[in-house]
Amino acid sequence: MILEIATLTIKSGMESAFETGVTSAVAAFKAAKGCHGMELQRSHEVPNRYLLFVRWDSVEAHMVDFRESPEFQVWRKAVGHCFEAPPTVEHVITAVHGFGGTVGD
Amino acid sequence: MILEIATLTIKSGMESAFETGVTSAVAAFKAAKGCHGMELQRSHEVPNRYLLFVRWDSVEAHMVDFRESPEFQVWRKAVGHCFEAPPTVEHVITAVHGFGGTVGD
Repeated sequence: MILEIATLTIKSGMESAFETGVTSAVAAFKAAKGCHGMELQRSHEVPNRYLLFVRWDSVEAHMVDFRESPEFQVWRKAVGHCFEAPPTVEHVITAVHGFGGTVGD
Repeated sequence: MILEIATLTIKSGMESAFETGVTSAVAAFKAAKGCHGMELQRSHEVPNRYLLFVRWDSVEAHMVDFRESPEFQVWRKAVGHCFEAPPTVEHVITAVHGFGGTVGD
């Protein structure tokens, strides 16, 4: 299991429309092959900066299967017009589980 | 509840020592006032880049109470020598819960 972290900078004043768009796209992530969870986090320091966390079976499940799927089109159609800049994406794997429940798996 | 995300760049070759140091500091986070969870994520794309996720009652619980506590000294003593650059820190709040469990609360 791997965690995708997409950093999304939203056009000023479109934060509410963006959050509504993300909510409408939850079903597309639920339907996506190899997807195990999704949530949206908003920055405290920079209010038009968001982090999208998505749990996938593998990097390929995200970067190949999802990117080529109809669900990706649903996602981009729901929120793409809100992006101020192209999203940046990284993938992380749990290295130390610590305590209190984990994000990545 | 708020999620701290600290981005940590580790000196090349010290990744294993760093992970051991983080593991040794789990108890300090468990003991910290207002701390509800901690885990370490490692970047897939940049192997000496890590994200530390820590759940706190509030930004103040992290930036004031923790930073002034003996537990912070334990943390820095365990891992500070592994940092290639000063850590960067941001705080995020769940905006859309999505599905599959959430990180922030």
